[in-house]
Amino acid sequence: MIAVLKRDTTPEQKEHLIQWLKRMNLDVHVSHGEQVTILGLVGDTSRVDMELLTSLEIVDTVKRVSEPFKQANRKFHPEDTVVEIGDVKIGGGHFAMIAGPCSVESEEQIIEVAQAVKASGATILRGGAFKPRTSPYAFQGLKGEGLRLLLEAKKATGLPIVTEIMNIKTLDMFEDVDIIQVGARNMQNFDLLQELGKTHKPVLLKRGLANTLQELLMSAEYIMSEGNENIILCERGIRTFETYTRNTLDVSAIPVLHELSHLPVVADPSHATGKSKLVAPMAAAAVAAGADGIMIEVHNNPSCALCDGAQSLTPAQFDQVSRKILAVREALL
Amino acid sequence: MIAVLKRDTTPEQKEHLIQWLKRMNLDVHVSHGEQVTILGLVGDTSRVDMELLTSLEIVDTVKRVSEPFKQANRKFHPEDTVVEIGDVKIGGGHFAMIAGPCSVESEEQIIEVAQAVKASGATILRGGAFKPRTSPYAFQGLKGEGLRLLLEAKKATGLPIVTEIMNIKTLDMFEDVDIIQVGARNMQNFDLLQELGKTHKPVLLKRGLANTLQELLMSAEYIMSEGNENIILCERGIRTFETYTRNTLDVSAIPVLHELSHLPVVADPSHATGKSKLVAPMAAAAVAAGADGIMIEVHNNPSCALCDGAQSLTPAQFDQVSRKILAVREALL
Amino acid sequence: MIAVLKRDTTPEQKEHLIQWLKRMNLDVHVSHGEQVTILGLVGDTSRVDMELLTSLEIVDTVKRVSEPFKQANRKFHPEDTVVEIGDVKIGGGHFAMIAGPCSVESEEQIIEVAQAVKASGATILRGGAFKPRTSPYAFQGLKGEGLRLLLEAKKATGLPIVTEIMNIKTLDMFEDVDIIQVGARNMQNFDLLQELGKTHKPVLLKRGLANTLQELLMSAEYIMSEGNENIILCERGIRTFETYTRNTLDVSAIPVLHELSHLPVVADPSHATGKSKLVAPMAAAAVAAGADGIMIEVHNNPSCALCDGAQSLTPAQFDQVSRKILAVREALL
Amino acid sequence: MIAVLKRDTTPEQKEHLIQWLKRMNLDVHVSHGEQVTILGLVGDTSRVDMELLTSLEIVDTVKRVSEPFKQANRKFHPEDTVVEIGDVKIGGGHFAMIAGPCSVESEEQIIEVAQAVKASGATILRGGAFKPRTSPYAFQGLKGEGLRLLLEAKKATGLPIVTEIMNIKTLDMFEDVDIIQVGARNMQNFDLLQELGKTHKPVLLKRGLANTLQELLMSAEYIMSEGNENIILCERGIRTFETYTRNTLDVSAIPVLHELSHLPVVADPSHATGKSKLVAPMAAAAVAAGADGIMIEVHNNPSCALCDGAQSLTPAQFDQVSRKILAVREALL
Repeated sequence: MIAVLKRDTTPEQKEHLIQWLKRMNLDVHVSHGEQVTILGLVGDTSRVDMELLTSLEIVDTVKRVSEPFKQANRKFHPEDTVVEIGDVKIGGGHFAMIAGPCSVESEEQIIEVAQAVKASGATILRGGAFKPRTSPYAFQGLKGEGLRLLLEAKKATGLPIVTEIMNIKTLDMFEDVDIIQVGARNMQNFDLLQELGKTHKPVLLKRGLANTLQELLMSAEYIMSEGNENIILCERGIRTFETYTRNTLDVSAIPVLHELSHLPVVADPSHATGKSKLVAPMAAAAVAAGADGIMIEVHNNPSCALCDGAQSLTPAQFDQVSRKILAVREALL
Repeated sequence: MIAVLKRDTTPEQKEHLIQWLKRMNLDVHVSHGEQVTILGLVGDTSRVDMELLTSLEIVDTVKRVSEPFKQANRKFHPEDTVVEIGDVKIGGGHFAMIAGPCSVESEEQIIEVAQAVKASGATILRGGAFKPRTSPYAFQGLKGEGLRLLLEAKKATGLPIVTEIMNIKTLDMFEDVDIIQVGARNMQNFDLLQELGKTHKPVLLKRGLANTLQELLMSAEYIMSEGNENIILCERGIRTFETYTRNTLDVSAIPVLHELSHLPVVADPSHATGKSKLVAPMAAAAVAAGADGIMIEVHNNPSCALCDGAQSLTPAQFDQVSRKILAVREALL
Repeated sequence: MIAVLKRDTTPEQKEHLIQWLKRMNLDVHVSHGEQVTILGLVGDTSRVDMELLTSLEIVDTVKRVSEPFKQANRKFHPEDTVVEIGDVKIGGGHFAMIAGPCSVESEEQIIEVAQAVKASGATILRGGAFKPRTSPYAFQGLKGEGLRLLLEAKKATGLPIVTEIMNIKTLDMFEDVDIIQVGARNMQNFDLLQELGKTHKPVLLKRGLANTLQELLMSAEYIMSEGNENIILCERGIRTFETYTRNTLDVSAIPVLHELSHLPVVADPSHATGKSKLVAPMAAAAVAAGADGIMIEVHNNPSCALCDGAQSLTPAQFDQVSRKILAVREALL
Repeated sequence: MIAVLKRDTTPEQKEHLIQWLKRMNLDVHVSHGEQVTILGLVGDTSRVDMELLTSLEIVDTVKRVSEPFKQANRKFHPEDTVVEIGDVKIGGGHFAMIAGPCSVESEEQIIEVAQAVKASGATILRGGAFKPRTSPYAFQGLKGEGLRLLLEAKKATGLPIVTEIMNIKTLDMFEDVDIIQVGARNMQNFDLLQELGKTHKPVLLKRGLANTLQELLMSAEYIMSEGNENIILCERGIRTFETYTRNTLDVSAIPVLHELSHLPVVADPSHATGKSKLVAPMAAAAVAAGADGIMIEVHNNPSCALCDGAQSLTPAQFDQVSRKILAVREALL
């Protein structure tokens, strides 16, 4: 870590700061320049409060030379992490096709969708049981019953399942869930992350709507620092000023996360765009940028002809997208 | 609620949609125009899934005529809510000066700061016991011991206390806390909000870093829908592209929230700007815009001469800011 | 256009507004609902000042049913526009590979790069002569001499050239330039757009750093409204909170622009990411999402071994990216 | 300027970079640390291309120790600049009340408004003759005729006038204008800035919708570097995710600009909020934060009862806001 001190810092102020840093067991190397003094801090700087240091009157700027995330960092773990769920693998060249409905609605619905997406190449079934909703009056999911129906669909198809947790208190209910999803709004629910770190369940961690990639990796670090290394990162769109799409899928997050971290990265074009028409081009784009998996909403509601243009694809549309994705992957091998 | 259908919608599609809406117990008024068809939906539209409706192929646009928040809405509750904590009141013309250290560090520290800020006009003591930190390796607060020290400071000074909760499981520990704070990162931790709604404790709800005011009010609605109406809204800065300040205090949020809602609104210039120099002008600005209270970080660390320029004010600086705030309030009476 | 009036609007206010709208030659259809009154405005609403209308006290919301852009709109021009520059075509299935250095530096440099990128499949040469720089003290380009060198490179290789204009007064100097580029910071320099509309030169119009796609299309409309239909839209990255990349390439802009408009769309991964390592994955992603062309920075500076990791690719790296792009295009045919 | 090199930089790469920097007439001080090498660059670093330097593979980070703006910098010019327009002064304790209509519409309108706002304390008249409009089909202002009418109003009231320029070619028409305004969309129209720098007219420079304060000051530097020091900075709202207000007035920009620069700073609450109801609280907030002036839209259209809630104030409303502003200023003396 490097701290640049302002030109008009007095020797006493410098000495005060250096003593304060040394009390944190850091070695401090001082370089006196014409315009500034530079302090090089060596040792375990992960405990240094950067915000406090930055806010000191005499400090011009503070720069971490090493990233603040360790276990999620590719520098200390050069090989790709491969998350394994039974026979299904994600990362290190293994690609996961995750598909299913937004919400679990009925046994018939979830089993039909599961069978359909499996036939089109899906390797993991998604479906929401606990639904985070902006309004307290909106449908909040079937909850425990939704989890039960997902497990029925797993039994019927053999597909492992991924579903979202919203509350530490419900962790026991997720015992048979294969991958626990942490939603965008809970990305910095640090207590939830720590509890998940104490399990050994794979966690699919979604990026928050206005969070940086470093913040996403720090949240992964929260889970890993408790001992759980089975993390799948998920880019699901960020908030921008564009209104035509619900959010903006940050495709560049995929190669950047691969550079910074060894963890697998999947993309969710359904939630990012909010429009079924955009799922195919954005899924193809994410795969072309190197995604280790794609997560797509598929519904199965033949009576609801209206829903055809919504965020979810029909099974037939998913089948086409699935072929397109595989074609792009082959082209890039 | 109004839904505008696209020009090329077929009569069958329209009929499908209308039937679907009617099954939600809504009256549907249809206006056929030259370019579009407009559906006016009357009834309890708070359960209508706007995202789904918007995403339908045949729907051009959906507009709520009534805001989705009810209990937080000034339309249905025209008089200002006054939150009372013993003798201290916030809202409806009652102004709260909330001050104290970022983190509780020791009994001596918290009691000294409490006495100092009380002498300068503070009416509520703030102090962090559970600290949300981006890094799992950073200091996370004194936790239970921090709560105990805050209660000592309350006993010594008579000031009611406000401190942050991060985890539903710790709710029991907050029994003697006067105001429970929900931090920006937990603004959409919906399960936490619902649990707080079941208590009758005043809640200080901070706006998320990239959230709209409607989203803030929907989170207040989560608490209120469970029966707790003692909510204080807090503007604490939003994420923008400006890097000189840590965040950007959205001063206009204050009059807008007052227009939309009857709940009291306080501003936190310390966290918003991250620079002690900016606390005085931004506190004055927030008061000039009508804030019902100001929340300011004050430290008391005479040995740490370095800290003078940090985010926190010294007691002497706080005394000056306090006078300035009161002068602006008087000028606007 | 639809205007929703608030519930408490008086009959006199309604009548005033309706008369005002009729004076703009609009037909006004009134639907009285229980909660609101809806005005449907028929006629040429492109002259209605939406901001003024929206800001009226009695108006709840205003919604354009038809997009405010006409000539750029796919609804009125369903077939793809193909921009032709001699034998080179862009749009409607024709793909353009645009490559060259950031700035033109010398005759040797620009001719060498032009020959190298042509050999790797580039169809258009890019190079900056007038450079928009944040600082008045930074190198502003070779200006007129830069244009002359670009024309030399065109003569030597046969590649048409694209280069940026910053100032209406210099338009005469662009007579032999094949495509005139309007940079992101000039996207809403409306007078410049109108002047370019009076020429018949192809214009490559870059999206502003914080502009919506509708604003980009309105800027295209400025050019088209003066008679010039040869416009190529360019997504070059938007400003977001992510700091690892210089900007964020909004890949979803590509399919959205194709849906809304008939104009060709190219992507510039070099400027968007600011890192040469990210050019290959992001170029592949943009092509997978349907881009009609890719614009890539290539330098040729064997003496500057340092520059290898910068934003620009070496000719050898460009050759690889070019192959990758073509492989993705073939996979998606 | 400080450049931090990555740990794995080879001695050859370091030497290459140092030679390259020395060729720019910089002294390079090298500090070898355990983790990194730090280069301190002394000399005129304003010509160093930070983007290029940052993008080099071996460079971890680059930090300017001195701000890139010189003439606008308070460090080199500690006293406040006072811009004088005849008897009217702005800055250094002199406060300017700027008021007038959005657009000049007729002689009667502009003279009536000018007389009204003068009576309520306005010291400068504003009014748009050339209007930047997102749509080519919207009213673009009375142009030359609008300038003529403004000059009539100046003659009738003695108020100096401020109005916007959009195009270098029209500069001659602004000979009798007292203050030339550069709008938010032209903040980085660098050629326009340079031309204005060659005049000695006061320039009111508005911050762009998504620009940082440093970028605003760099644009001021463009004007100053050509010799014109009469610049008034204007905060007029930035683009955020909030939709209730048109933009978000960044009140903290006022004290920050005062810290970084000696130039006067005014705020425009009318354009920032887009709602007349918010003008009074936000004008008061800006003044409380230290603004040197406030710019407010006032219309005078007794026949248009509808317009009462729009962005502009009536003369009577302006009179109240004016009193409120003065009360806040007095309280803070």
